[in-house]
This record gives sequence, structure tokens and C-alpha cells, in this order.
Amino acid sequence: MNKTVLAQIDTIAGDISLNTDKIVNCIKKAQSENADLIIFPELALMGYPFGDIFIRHKSIITRQLKALNKIVKLTKNITALIGFVEPTEDISKKPFYNSVAVIQNGKIINVIRKRLLPNYCEFNDYRYFEPSKETPELFEINGEKYGVLVCEDSFNDKSFFKENSIYETDPVEELMKKKPDTLINCSCSPSRTGKEHVKNKLFSSIAKEYGVNYIYVNKAGYSDNLCFAGTSRIYNKKGELKIRAKSFEEDIVVVENLQGQICPVPNGMEEKIDFKNFNTEYKTDLERTYKSIVFGIKEYFSKNGFSKAVLGLSGGLDSTICAVLLADALGKDNVWGISMPSRITSKESKNDARILAENLGIHFFEIPLASVLDSFKEKFDFAFNNVKTEKFEKSTTIENLQARTRATILWSISNEHKQMLPIATSDKSEAYIGYATVNGDMSGGFAPIADVTKTKLFALGAFLNEYREQKNVIPQSVLEKPPGAELKINPKTGKTVSAEEDNMPYEFLDEIIWFVENFGFGFDDLMNHKFLYEKRHQLMQELKEEWIKKFFWKSKCAVYKWHILPPSIIIDAHSINSVEYHQPIISKVN
Amino acid sequence: MNKTVLAQIDTIAGDISLNTDKIVNCIKKAQSENADLIIFPELALMGYPFGDIFIRHKSIITRQLKALNKIVKLTKNITALIGFVEPTEDISKKPFYNSVAVIQNGKIINVIRKRLLPNYCEFNDYRYFEPSKETPELFEINGEKYGVLVCEDSFNDKSFFKENSIYETDPVEELMKKKPDTLINCSCSPSRTGKEHVKNKLFSSIAKEYGVNYIYVNKAGYSDNLCFAGTSRIYNKKGELKIRAKSFEEDIVVVENLQGQICPVPNGMEEKIDFKNFNTEYKTDLERTYKSIVFGIKEYFSKNGFSKAVLGLSGGLDSTICAVLLADALGKDNVWGISMPSRITSKESKNDARILAENLGIHFFEIPLASVLDSFKEKFDFAFNNVKTEKFEKSTTIENLQARTRATILWSISNEHKQMLPIATSDKSEAYIGYATVNGDMSGGFAPIADVTKTKLFALGAFLNEYREQKNVIPQSVLEKPPGAELKINPKTGKTVSAEEDNMPYEFLDEIIWFVENFGFGFDDLMNHKFLYEKRHQLMQELKEEWIKKFFWKSKCAVYKWHILPPSIIIDAHSINSVEYHQPIISKVN
Repeated sequence: MNKTVLAQIDTIAGDISLNTDKIVNCIKKAQSENADLIIFPELALMGYPFGDIFIRHKSIITRQLKALNKIVKLTKNITALIGFVEPTEDISKKPFYNSVAVIQNGKIINVIRKRLLPNYCEFNDYRYFEPSKETPELFEINGEKYGVLVCEDSFNDKSFFKENSIYETDPVEELMKKKPDTLINCSCSPSRTGKEHVKNKLFSSIAKEYGVNYIYVNKAGYSDNLCFAGTSRIYNKKGELKIRAKSFEEDIVVVENLQGQICPVPNGMEEKIDFKNFNTEYKTDLERTYKSIVFGIKEYFSKNGFSKAVLGLSGGLDSTICAVLLADALGKDNVWGISMPSRITSKESKNDARILAENLGIHFFEIPLASVLDSFKEKFDFAFNNVKTEKFEKSTTIENLQARTRATILWSISNEHKQMLPIATSDKSEAYIGYATVNGDMSGGFAPIADVTKTKLFALGAFLNEYREQKNVIPQSVLEKPPGAELKINPKTGKTVSAEEDNMPYEFLDEIIWFVENFGFGFDDLMNHKFLYEKRHQLMQELKEEWIKKFFWKSKCAVYKWHILPPSIIIDAHSINSVEYHQPIISKVN
Repeated sequence: MNKTVLAQIDTIAGDISLNTDKIVNCIKKAQSENADLIIFPELALMGYPFGDIFIRHKSIITRQLKALNKIVKLTKNITALIGFVEPTEDISKKPFYNSVAVIQNGKIINVIRKRLLPNYCEFNDYRYFEPSKETPELFEINGEKYGVLVCEDSFNDKSFFKENSIYETDPVEELMKKKPDTLINCSCSPSRTGKEHVKNKLFSSIAKEYGVNYIYVNKAGYSDNLCFAGTSRIYNKKGELKIRAKSFEEDIVVVENLQGQICPVPNGMEEKIDFKNFNTEYKTDLERTYKSIVFGIKEYFSKNGFSKAVLGLSGGLDSTICAVLLADALGKDNVWGISMPSRITSKESKNDARILAENLGIHFFEIPLASVLDSFKEKFDFAFNNVKTEKFEKSTTIENLQARTRATILWSISNEHKQMLPIATSDKSEAYIGYATVNGDMSGGFAPIADVTKTKLFALGAFLNEYREQKNVIPQSVLEKPPGAELKINPKTGKTVSAEEDNMPYEFLDEIIWFVENFGFGFDDLMNHKFLYEKRHQLMQELKEEWIKKFFWKSKCAVYKWHILPPSIIIDAHSINSVEYHQPIISKVN
């Protein structure tokens, strides 16, 4: 096998000059190592994901093609595979192909065009690209013959996917008729729960079935809510994994004779997820979840010119987990945790916030809210009387006021400082039912855990206490007390109302979310489903029905909030992140 | 010609039972009028736009097909054309067709499948639908032969579009080989600047070219940032307009022998827009703009269960125009305008706000902010000292604090009252360069003018003063003073800083936006372009360059804000509304 470089790099959509520099540097390094072949991820020169930018801003395409010509001249004694957006120049076709240029010794010797264009979830290939109908030619280096696939082209193996095959053509099958020795797959494939298992099995089974070497080069980076793990790899003709690059970071791997390192992947990342059985352990997904979020925060901050974060520390689970993730991503010196107690905040919560901050070593101080809330309330007496006759009937107003005042303080602190972003600490369970305040805890420059459900956050908290070098940074009480926003008092108990009293048990809610997202369950399906919660507790059918109805009603009202969620990181197999899933505000789903 | 009903109705995505009731009622009405044929808009039974709802929530499709069967039984003595989502039942194809059922006397006699699937701007047909490759059969009523087109199928006439034709096939040409007497086009076609002109010319030219009657039935309604004008119509075989339904409202038109009313359209709506020459008159687009927004507000509020609006009245242009539009859409008794002056708010602004409210007859009162701002600032002295050594260097912090405090008060008022939404008053020019405060004037339950530029708002203000029954509700001073957020004082002049001092003249900014949106202009194109502003004023090339660079830099930083804009109404030919245009936060366009 030829000496091959897997260039597992990250590039930025439309930033052609940055992308070109990165590609050129990799080629130079490969040449200095006397490599025969260097492979970049899908669309490396344009950067991915790109949304609609080159449809509206046409000069990006011009700049990209100029850059490609420049790169071509620098490929002395090497073959380079570079993904780019290729104009079709045929008005009756889509304007572009999603292509890979095969550049050899100063010439483009072949252009491979993507055949299968995914158009679901975060993928919108057909919005921009014409699907190629041709099986590409092989290219040759020192007698070894290579066939090239672009990402999805490798995802329709009929013996693997069986009835889940969604395209007519299998480009692998057709390409293999030309008898390549090695298949190369240039990809931009985001990490999601359960997906790494499929990729590993699929690539290995293709290699084995056809007796071909299989090289997979994936982007490593974060952009626009998507986290690309990298984890590029090579399988030999028996389907055995021989080389694997790092996960959640860029990596340049030089391979000779199929010899190299098999870097570890996060624990359980390639295990099969049993989607049909909901559980609250999430064991095989916790390290991947942690690494995805930490990588996502790092990348979002650095690519947007930020280095510091400020967040409210309530002593509750959400802000606690966010603080740990931020400290690990940005460094403890770059994180400010602010405790902002109101009159109803418990001593325990204040303590938990302070202890966490001390354990982590992040900056910490307290700003009591009472005087600001009082000055607002003074205005309200007047304002509400002016709008209607009854006054102050809704506790929601004052609950939300606390959350909004906190966010105003966080935004002000971030305003005053360079490179600082305030953090939205909302989680996925609460986003689903709109249990978060607009301009309050929902607001921020970034929302690290918006695609992590509450039960998974509990599991993640316990995991972090064991996994991190410094053990037990999260106070045990945070992992044990019932979650609640501490925004109102229950007059019967005299205690703050827990979120589960307001809504339903999180274990039940998260199982609804699981089956709605993964299997499209509607009301009837959910009523017929035996919940984990039902196995563990007595549950009257009337209450079950009430909770399921509450879920659909509350999530209908929450869709507006989904539309204005800050940028985040998609973690699960499915999400309500607008990059993946779009639901109009005016719509009905059940 | 058969007695025909154009059912220009509005339906809601996924709300199958509501849509079915509406369709059934129309059919009954048509039957009671002894009509032969009733035509509904594209996808009337599913409702449009639907985002991804039936991909995730599969039971919607089941419910829809049951409802179709129910409707079929009710079509005694009539032919009904009903748009629906049809499963393909072929796993190697996309899962659905975008279809029209031709139902005659209790039977589905034909299913017409959409052939041209638009996949640009707000359209994503190919994400869900398989394009049909077949020319549909005609159907017949009393010897008259009909051919059916689904929306885009009519938009590839090569003699009309010439080099702008974007598909290989022209379904009209192919359908006409079967020699229908009448073409029917079932559409869901949103209103945009310049689009009504194209539709009118195109349909008329097809009718004339082929010597065929042409019936166009469009949805009238608002959903998910799109405004559908309705304006259904019939052209005779000479291409003459014979019937036109109402614009911006539902309408059921019964037509016999091509006789009927030609309802007026908003002034200038069907005139050709000269996109190559920017001007600040906008004359042909003002009534349509006004009607679109008023219709959009009405629909958004009623469909989401709201009836009242509260907004901050600064005495500036944006909040003034919003107040007029809200009063016209919801009724003056349902609008609350709150003046929230800080210490630097001018007397003139306070007066202008009060006079406007009095003129409109909306509710009005004043809440001075000083005490709330002081209570925040007290906290900041402490907080900022805890974060860094220098204190209070940025005026932005206090500027934004004013905007955020105002929004907090508005959200609190809306919280306290039933069916009330706070309004985000941001305009399009400011959204482009991020000149709006997160959790401040950018925040609200709805943003009526987020797709209207500042120069167009000035023109709209003057138009409203003449057009509305009650003349001159907007104080002349509002239309004359330079716009500015009144958030900071210029130490040199002692006056508040105007927005144009902070950024660039709005006339210049709006022309950049015009050419970027309509022609994809980049930096070089803009430098080579002669601006209207340059014709009217002396402008140094250095300053021109500075402004253009400032535009690209500021809009790069503003992309985050575009992602969290509240729901709005797309007005212009192009926009930054995420329903139409997606730009990743991590990206570079120039």
C-alpha cells in the first residue's frame, strides 16, 4: 500500500484563504514525509456546513476555484484528494456538484462527484447539488488502484441496510465492478448517539464483503450545532480495523503498509445502542457526550473570538454541569460563576453553588437580587394597574422576572469584558416543554446542554465525579435533590416547588422524548407503551394520560422557544435543534 | 366553462381535523350552489408550510389519509381538487409525492403528482417529495378537459424564463400536448417584492401562447414567516384576466362562464420592480408591504391564541410604525404602548411617543427607568470590580442595560395578562449589522418589521399618514429626525448619538443590502457600484470603502442575532429570515 496521509482537519465554511493555508500546509508536510497520497475530508476547501452562503454570495465560488488552481500547482510528487464545490455549468441542472478533485503531480486527473445526496436531518445536499449518475473512474498510484466515495455514497449497502436502504443505487457495488484495491471515503459526518457503531460496522463489512482496503477520512471540528468527531480510520481487506485517528481533535496520520496507531475512542462510542429499550444509565454514551460538548465549547468560542464564559450558578444540576464542562473546555481561570440569590433561594442552593465553584477553582461571587427585584416590582404595581383591574394574579411574572434579571446581569458582565460570553443553561427536557424563561435561563451566547435530557445530566454528573482527574467536584446533594428552578414557593409545604411537581417525573418525560424522537411515537403509541417509570412505580392510567397530553400541549406552546434557542451542540440521535428539525410555530403534530 | 369554485382558503400544517372541516364546508357550499368543480390550494389537506412535522410524527400522514377518504364520500355531483401528501410506498424513492387528488362523485379518479420541486429560498420540496416523471392524465367534466399543475410545475416556461429556466422539463408544454381546454394551477405561493408581477405575466402568457383557460388557486394566510396573498385568478384563452379573488384574506369565488369580479390588488403590487436601480421611494411596494404585515400580525396572533400586544414607544421610527401596524391589525383597544424614558431620553421623544399614542387611541403610560437602572448599576460596581481591575469602560454595557430593562418590563406586563405578546421592534437594516440588543429591542413574541429596511420604513411612514382614513397619525418630527436608539450621549455635542453616526447613512446601508440580497454583490462589486448616495452627496472613496468593510464585518458578527430573531414576516424579494436564508454562525462570506 502506498504511503498515505489522512488529513483529518477542520476548515471554516467560506473562509477560503484559511482553508487553503491549512490544506497547503498539510500537503507540504506530506511531501516532506515522502507520502504518495494525501486525503482530505469532504468539501474541505469550501468548509462544511455552509448553509446557503455560496448561493447568495457567489464570489465565494470564484475564490474557491482560484484557490484550487493554486493548490494544484503545489502537488509535486504527490496525489491529493480535495473536496470542493464544483459548478455544473448546465442551467437545467442544480448549480453545483459535491466533488472531490484528484490532483496528481500538478494536474487534476479526475473529479469524483457525489452520487447519493442526503436530504434529511442536518443534511440538505440536494438544495445545492446535482446528484452524479456516473460511476467514477479509478485512479492509480504505483500500480495500486483507488476508487473514491463521497460520504453518503458509502451508505446504501443493501446487504447491510436491507429494508432501510433509501436509494436505488449502491455506488459501492458499482464502483467495485471496476476492481479497485482500495476504497477511499471522504466524509463530513457528525457524531450522534448510536452513529459511530453503524459507521464502524458498515465500513468493516464493506471491506470484508468486497475484499478491499477501506480508508475513511472525516472532518474533526464543530460548526453550527454539529460536532464532527474525526475518528478517521483504515480497514484491511478482511474488514479488520488497522488504523484509527484521534477523536474530537484534528489529526494528521501518516500510514505506511497499513501500520499505525489505533487511537482509542470514547468509552462505548462504537457500541450498539438499543433504542427500543429506554434506560437512564446512558453508560455507553457519557464519555462521547462529555467530549462532544467540551470540544464544541472550545471550537465555538475560539472560532468566534471568545475565550471567557460567565454563567449563573444556582446550585442546581443544569448550571453545575455547565460549569464543569466550561471549566474543562476553557480552563478554570476563564469561567465566572455568579450566584444570584433572591429572597426564596435556599441556603443549601447557595452553599452548593459556592462549593462547586471552589472545587472547580473558577471565579465566583454573589450578587443578591432583592434590591433590583424590588425596584422592578415598584414599577409593576403601577404598570399592571394601568393594564387591568385585578393585580398580581400570576406568580409566573415574578418567577420569570428573577430569571430575566439574572440574565440581564450576566449579559451586562459579558458586555463589559472582552471575549466573554454568557451561557444559557437550559437542558433538553425543559426545552421540550418550554420550562425555561425567554430572556432568562434560555438566553445566552451559547447553550452547552440544550440537547441533553435531565436524566442523562444526572448520569453525566455521576460520571464526571468519577471520570475527571479531580474526583467528586459536584456536591453529592446536587445529584440527589429534586430539580427545580427555585422561582416560587408551594404555599402548602412552604418549600420551593420542584420541577417534577410542576410538570411530570423527568424519567417519564425523557422516555416520551426518546420514543417521539427515535420512533415518531404519537399519543396512541405512547398510551400503549409500557414506560420504565411504570415498571418502577404504580401509575394510574388517568395520570399517564394526563402527562402525555401535557407533554404534547406544552411542547406545542414551546415551539416558539425552540426557534430562538442559542447555538448549541446536537448530541442525541435526534433533537429539536433547528439545524436538524424544523417545526413551524403554527402547526399541530398530535 | 363549468361552474367553478376557487376555494382560496388557509389551512394549518398538521391540523388535519381543522383542515378537513374547512374543506368539507367549502364543498358543501359549492354543492349548494350547484357548482361542477371546486379547487383548493396546493397541499390544502396537510396545510403548508409544514417543516419536518410529518417526517418525525408519522401519525399525521395516517390521519390525513383517513380524512381524505372521508372527504371523498362527500363529493356527490361535484369534482373536487384537493392537495395532499401522498406516500410513495417505494423505499428507493423519497417517501412522499406532493399530490392533488381529483375526486369526482365519491371516487378518486386521478392523482396528479408535482413534477418540479423547488428547493431554494423558503422551498424545500425535495427534502420530502419524489418528483413525478409522468405527464398527468386530463380529467373531464361535461366535455370540458382539464389539465392540472402543482405550483412550480407552471414555472418553467422556456419562452418566458429563457436563460432563467432552471429545470429540464416544462410540464406545461407536455401537458398541453394532451390538449386540455383549461389548465388548473394549485399553489401555495408566498408574496414577495416583485413576485406578483412575474406570476401575472407568466400565467397570462401561458394562457395566450397555448390558447387555454388558466385557473390559479393560491392559499391566503400567514404561517411561519411567510405571507400568502391569495389573489387567485382566471385568465381566458387570450390571456386576459377575467376573475381575481381578494388579496390578503380568504375568499371563496364562484365562477360561471368566466364571469366574475376582478378584485383590486394593492397599489403597484403587479408592477414590474426595477431591481437594478435602487431607490428610496418604494412606491409600488408600500401598500402590499402594509397589507402583508397587518395580515401577518392578525394571523400570527389569532392562530397562536393571542389578541393583545404591548410595545415600548420610544418616539422613534421603528416603534412608531409598529404601533400603527398593530393598531390596524389588532384594534387600538388591544395595543399598549409604554414609554420607558431613561435620564438621557429627550423631551421630544417622550412627546412624540405620547402624541402618537393619543392619535392612534391606543393605551399609553409612562414608566421612568431611572430607579431600576440605578439598582442594577449598584450591583455592577461590585460585579465589574470582581471580574477585572478597570471598571466601567464600555458605554455599551449601560446602553444595552436600558434596552434590556425595557424588554424585561414588557415581558413582565405580557406575562401578567392573558393573550398578550410583547413586540420586537427591530428593523431589517439594523438586523443586518446587529444594531439591536439581545434580550432588548430584538426580543419579543413577534417582530413585525424585521424584514423592512429603514429607508423603506420612512417611506412607509409617509404613506401611512396619507393612506389611512385617519390622516397624519405619525408626528412629522418622527419622520424627520435622524434615527437613533437614544442610548448614549456624544460628549462633543452633548446630544444623543444618532445611528448614522454610529454606523453609516441608512440610504447607503440599504443600498448595500439591496444589491447583496438581489444580486449577491461582494466587496469588489460594491466598490465598483455607483451608489444613489454618491449621486446625491460627495463621498470619498476611502469612506465608501470603510462603510462597505464595516457592513461585512458587522454583519458577520450579527449572524448569531439572525439565528435568534423572533418570528416575523418575509416582505422583500430576499431576506435574512432563517426560513429563507441560512448562514452558519461560523462562516465567512467576504
